[in-house]
Amino acid sequence: MGRGTEPRGAPRARVLATRRVYEGKVLSLDVDEVEEPGDVRAEREVVRHRGSVAVLPVHDDGRLVLVRQYRYPVDALVWELPAGRLDAGESAEEAARRELEEEVGLRPRRLEPLTVFYTTPGFCDETMHLFRATGLRGVAARPEADERIEAGTFTLARARGMIRRGEIREGKTLVALLMEIARRPSARRR
Amino acid sequence: MGRGTEPRGAPRARVLATRRVYEGKVLSLDVDEVEEPGDVRAEREVVRHRGSVAVLPVHDDGRLVLVRQYRYPVDALVWELPAGRLDAGESAEEAARRELEEEVGLRPRRLEPLTVFYTTPGFCDETMHLFRATGLRGVAARPEADERIEAGTFTLARARGMIRRGEIREGKTLVALLMEIARRPSARRR
Repeated sequence: MGRGTEPRGAPRARVLATRRVYEGKVLSLDVDEVEEPGDVRAEREVVRHRGSVAVLPVHDDGRLVLVRQYRYPVDALVWELPAGRLDAGESAEEAARRELEEEVGLRPRRLEPLTVFYTTPGFCDETMHLFRATGLRGVAARPEADERIEAGTFTLARARGMIRRGEIREGKTLVALLMEIARRPSARRR
Repeated sequence: MGRGTEPRGAPRARVLATRRVYEGKVLSLDVDEVEEPGDVRAEREVVRHRGSVAVLPVHDDGRLVLVRQYRYPVDALVWELPAGRLDAGESAEEAARRELEEEVGLRPRRLEPLTVFYTTPGFCDETMHLFRATGLRGVAARPEADERIEAGTFTLARARGMIRRGEIREGKTLVALLMEIARRPSARRR
């Protein structure tokens, strides 16, 4: 990630044994026997994931675009940022532009990196690249065959109410909306 | 989660076949053949996880407590909220109190639920319960055998600077700190 606080040369784990128990389309699973810094010897179950991007699209009038889709793992319809996995060889910015166009049919003039974070570093190596897209113009959306996506447009005040009522209940989406609230003085005061 | 926006009786997936490819200590992995709402037929790789809690400890003077620990999946030292998995039969509040005491040796007079969210609903069912702990008093910390945890105390202004510089790079921790920034007028204006 290149922006860490750990000192260079920080102690790393020594891998004593590794076993790939599953190799799939979206993820793989390793069970590793490791010796971590501080002489911690442990067996770690690690989901390997190629990394993701998510985009907060902001219209010229300040309204935000979210998508709602059925998520089988949690058996629920979830409001989220337009998002997806990195394709092989693709940069995070390229993936963000691709997902924005595929999922909501928008092309941004400007794509600003917001932050990069680990979604669940206790058991998964997924890195999430968050962007903010502005200068949006509409093109045709092209959802993937296994996606049914509904888009919605919200003022920041409305999104803030949704957070307060527990209606935004997905990690990356909370991070991006709360960053947007922090940068807009008028929304903060409400 | 009981606080969703989807209508009652919303269409749910039909599971055509399920295969448990791994059953572990921290997580299990299923590969399910499903028919989702909107006639989407798909094979879904789903990490099953029992759910987690995380706590933002806030001292009487407003300073916050974070922990830094080595996370093998991402091979990095990561600043995070005190956090952990739910034990069997344990409520989220009980788990939050337990983790706070185990990891940083603090007992709260008040534990306020902040939000509940999915960490990665695209491939995992983990639910994260976030709390804010106040009225803290010190007791002895009791880290688990496979944990090496360093605690740090930060003003909110300092935490905000760490977010800006990309030094806070974990999902739940960003959510809790950004919620804290949103609720404290003095921190927001900086």
